[in-house]
Amino acid sequence: MSRDSVIDTRTGDAPPTASSPDAAAVERAVGEIRAALDDKGWVTDPAALDSWLVDSRGIYHGKCLGMARPASTAEVAAVMRIAYEAGIPVVPQGGNTGRVGGSTPDGSGRMLLINLSRMNKVRAIDAANDTMTVEAGCILKSLQDEAAAADRLFPLSLGAEGTCQIGGNLASNAGGINVVRYGNARELVLGLEVVLPDGRVWDGLTGLRKNNTGYDMKHLFLGSEGTLGIITGAVLKLFPRPRTRATALVALSDLDAALTLLADAKAKGGGALTSFELMPGFALDWAEKLVEGARAPFEQTYDWTVLLEFAGGEAVEAALQTLLEEAFEAERIVDAVIAQSEDQRGQLWFLREAIVDAQNREGAQIKHDISVPVSAIPDFIRRAAEAVERVQPGTRPYPFGHVGDGNIHYNLSQPEDMDGETFKARAPDLHRAVHDIVHDLKGSISAEHGIGRSKRDELTRYKSAVELDIMRQVKRALDPKGLMNPGALLPEA
Amino acid sequence: MSRDSVIDTRTGDAPPTASSPDAAAVERAVGEIRAALDDKGWVTDPAALDSWLVDSRGIYHGKCLGMARPASTAEVAAVMRIAYEAGIPVVPQGGNTGRVGGSTPDGSGRMLLINLSRMNKVRAIDAANDTMTVEAGCILKSLQDEAAAADRLFPLSLGAEGTCQIGGNLASNAGGINVVRYGNARELVLGLEVVLPDGRVWDGLTGLRKNNTGYDMKHLFLGSEGTLGIITGAVLKLFPRPRTRATALVALSDLDAALTLLADAKAKGGGALTSFELMPGFALDWAEKLVEGARAPFEQTYDWTVLLEFAGGEAVEAALQTLLEEAFEAERIVDAVIAQSEDQRGQLWFLREAIVDAQNREGAQIKHDISVPVSAIPDFIRRAAEAVERVQPGTRPYPFGHVGDGNIHYNLSQPEDMDGETFKARAPDLHRAVHDIVHDLKGSISAEHGIGRSKRDELTRYKSAVELDIMRQVKRALDPKGLMNPGALLPEA
Repeated sequence: MSRDSVIDTRTGDAPPTASSPDAAAVERAVGEIRAALDDKGWVTDPAALDSWLVDSRGIYHGKCLGMARPASTAEVAAVMRIAYEAGIPVVPQGGNTGRVGGSTPDGSGRMLLINLSRMNKVRAIDAANDTMTVEAGCILKSLQDEAAAADRLFPLSLGAEGTCQIGGNLASNAGGINVVRYGNARELVLGLEVVLPDGRVWDGLTGLRKNNTGYDMKHLFLGSEGTLGIITGAVLKLFPRPRTRATALVALSDLDAALTLLADAKAKGGGALTSFELMPGFALDWAEKLVEGARAPFEQTYDWTVLLEFAGGEAVEAALQTLLEEAFEAERIVDAVIAQSEDQRGQLWFLREAIVDAQNREGAQIKHDISVPVSAIPDFIRRAAEAVERVQPGTRPYPFGHVGDGNIHYNLSQPEDMDGETFKARAPDLHRAVHDIVHDLKGSISAEHGIGRSKRDELTRYKSAVELDIMRQVKRALDPKGLMNPGALLPEA
Repeated sequence: MSRDSVIDTRTGDAPPTASSPDAAAVERAVGEIRAALDDKGWVTDPAALDSWLVDSRGIYHGKCLGMARPASTAEVAAVMRIAYEAGIPVVPQGGNTGRVGGSTPDGSGRMLLINLSRMNKVRAIDAANDTMTVEAGCILKSLQDEAAAADRLFPLSLGAEGTCQIGGNLASNAGGINVVRYGNARELVLGLEVVLPDGRVWDGLTGLRKNNTGYDMKHLFLGSEGTLGIITGAVLKLFPRPRTRATALVALSDLDAALTLLADAKAKGGGALTSFELMPGFALDWAEKLVEGARAPFEQTYDWTVLLEFAGGEAVEAALQTLLEEAFEAERIVDAVIAQSEDQRGQLWFLREAIVDAQNREGAQIKHDISVPVSAIPDFIRRAAEAVERVQPGTRPYPFGHVGDGNIHYNLSQPEDMDGETFKARAPDLHRAVHDIVHDLKGSISAEHGIGRSKRDELTRYKSAVELDIMRQVKRALDPKGLMNPGALLPEA
C-alpha cells in the first residue's frame, strides 16, 4: 500500500542494493569520478546537497557518496563507466519534483547521485520538421518558451513546469493538463539519447515520424524512472500554436452527463478539445471562501461542473457555442459561462487551480492519483464514495481532474469534526479501499506520478505475476548489476 | 542491402535456428499440438498450405512442420508451450500481406507456422471510452466498419486493409494514409494481450490513457515482427467520426513550397489535416494515360503536386479555402482544384492510387520505403535524383507519398530504352546509393514495412552497434531459446 501520507522518516528505507563494493574500491572510484568532472561537477558540501536529498513531499530523506553534476553526455558516460566498474548504485535526478520518491537516494550513503541540471541546452530546433532536440536538464517551462519563440507549441504542461526538468518528465512519463489532445510525455518524443548502465551511449536522437527498423527502444526508457539508464537528450515533437481558445465552465445535470458531454465535445471540436476538467460544485465554493481572488461564477452550488477548452483556429468559438446550445437542449448541462476575454479565461483557470489550494486549507488530506476507463468514471466516483464512508464515516471525497484521460485526482478531506492526524492514520485502509475499486474497474493506481519508492510494494498486489516477471527480465537484461536506481519502481522478487 | 527486387528463390534462406531438436521429439510435439487444437486447427495439406508459405511479393517460399490455426488465446498458449518445450521455432502469421518476408517460414521445414486468422472476434466496444478490444486475426477493414457502426473512427488505413489482420498491423507497426493526424499503428494501441515464447499469457488489455505503473511493455511487442511473442489481442483507440472533409489537389510553385504549405496546413487546420500527399506532376499524366478512369485535372504538367485533405467539423471547408487563398498570394501554389462533391473527392483519391498502378505499367521498378526528417525531404529528393543518375543514367525517379510523416516512396522506373531485367540487376547499387543518402540525412531505410527477412542484413550497416546490442539483450531476455521468428528482423551477431 502507499504510505506517503503517513510516513515521515528522516532516514528513508535503505533497501538493499545489488552490490556492495569494498570501501577502498569506492574511494578510488569517487576519486576517478571527481577527476572526470570539472569544478562545478562534484558536490559533497552538506548544505549544498541538502535540498537534493529529500523528495518534493518531504517524505524521503537520503544520503549519498556525492552528487555528480555532469555538463555533457560524455561526462555522464564517464561517470557511469566508473560507477559500473566499481559496482556503485546510482540515482539519476532532474528537478527533483517527483511525487513518489523516485529521485531520492536511500539512507545507506552508498549511492551516487547524478543530477542533470547542468545539461540544459536546446541543441536544435527544426521548425519545418516540428521538432526540438534538447538536453535532459532543460526546465520544462523554458522549453515551452523556446517552442513559442519558434512559433510552435510544446504542449507538455503541469504544475511543476517552472522547476521540473524534461529528463525527469520523460523518465516518469509525465501527464498534465493537455493529455486529452496531445498525449502523455511519452507521446511527445521521437528520439532519445540514453547513457546505459555500463556507460555506453545510445544515440537514438531521431526526428523521424515513421521508422520501422527494429524494436522501439525509446519506449523502454520512457517511464522507467531511471532504472534502466539515464536519459540525457531527446527529440521532442512540436505542434502549431493555437490561434484561438474557447473556454467555458458548465454545470452538469448529473455526473453521468460528463461522459456524453465529453463525447460531444470531442466530436464537435474536430480534434480541438484540449481540456475537460471535472470539479465538484462545492469545491468552487471552497475556493471562493478560502483562496483570495477565486470567484465561483454560478449563483448556486451545482453537484458537478466541468471546465472545458477548445484551442485551434477561429472556428473553435462557434464549435463551443454549438456544443453548449445542444447540451442545454439535451439537458446535459443546466448552466454555463463562456469566457469573453483572455482575462475571464484566466479567472476560470485560476478557479481550477484554486480548488487544489482550497482543499489544502480545509484540513488533512489523503490523495490518490488514479485512472480508470473513461466510461467507468461515474461508477468509480460513486463506488469509492460509498467505500470511504464505510472505512471512515464523515470523510469528504473531493474528486476532480482530467475526465478525458480517465484520470481522477481522488482526494479525501478529513471529517469536519476529526483531528487531522487521526484521519491521516486511516490512510492505509482508505488507500486499500480506493485502490481495490480502481483495480476492479481495470484502472491504474498511478495515472501520472509513477511508482518510485512510495508505490513500489503496491505493484505486487495489483500487477500480474507475468507482467512483473517480464519487467524483471528486461531489467536484468539492460542492468545486469542492478545498479540503476535500486529501490525504485520494481518490487523485490 | 535489400535484395527484394532481384532475388526470386524457391527455397528461401533457411537461416540457422537456435535449437535443433531430434526428429522423434518433434514428432511427439506435433502430435501434442494437433491434440491441443480442433479439426480446423491443424493444416498440412500442401494445397491448403501453399499460399501461406510464400510472401505477398512472391520472393520468399518456405516450408513448415504444419500450420496451427488456433481459435483462442488459450489454444495459442497451449501450442506455444509445447513448441517451447520441444525447441521448435515458430513463425506467427496474420493476413500474410507483409512486404519484407517477415511472416514466411524458412526453407528448412523445421518451423511451425501459427496463423491467427481464426481469432477474429471483436471482444468489446466501449464507445464512452473510445476503445475497442479485438483479437489479432480481425481483418483491418472489418474493424474500420465495426468502429463506424459505433459512430466512431478507427483511423488505420492502408492498401491491404481488405485482407491484412490487425495482429500483423501491430506486430509491424503499420503506417498508411492517416499517420500525419493519428499516428502509426503503435500510437493507436492502449493495451495488448501477448502469448510469450514459453506459452505464458500476458494480459495487458488495458483501456487506460494514463497508466504509469512500470515499464510500458506493449511498445516492445508492437513493431517486433513476431520475434518476442505473439500478439493475440489489443485494445485500440477510437476517435470521433469526421463529419466533413475538404479535399484539394494543388500544384506547387516548387518542391520547397511543400514544406511551407504543410506548415500552414497544420497551423490553419487546427489538427484537422489528415493527408498531405506529394506527387510528381508527370505521374498524374502517366496515370491518365495508363489507368482507366484516372483523370489529371490540370491543363498543364506541373513539377510537383500535393493532394491534401482536412477532416473534422464544417469549419474545415473554410479553413481549406483560406489556406489556398493565402498560398496563392504567397506564391506557394500556382494552381488548385477543390473537390466540390464526394464524387470529385473520390476522383482525386483514385488519381492518388492510380499513380501507383501507372508506374507498375511503365516497365521495371525498384522501390524504397524510406523516411527522413520532414525538413530534409526536398534535399533528399534532389540528392537522390543526382545519385541514381550517376549509378544508372536514364533512371526515372518517381517519388511520392506522405510528406507530413517524412515518408517518401522513392520508386525508380527503368530508363526508357533499357531492358527491365537489366535495370533490376542494378538494384543493389541503387539501393545502396539511396539508402546511404537516407542515412546521411538521419533517415530510416524502412519507414513503414519493417525489416523482416529482406532488410535484416541492411540493419548491420545502418544501425549503431550499441542499438543492435540492446535489441539483442532484450531479445535474449524475452526469447532465451531464440525460437520466435528466427531469421526475421535481428541480424546475426
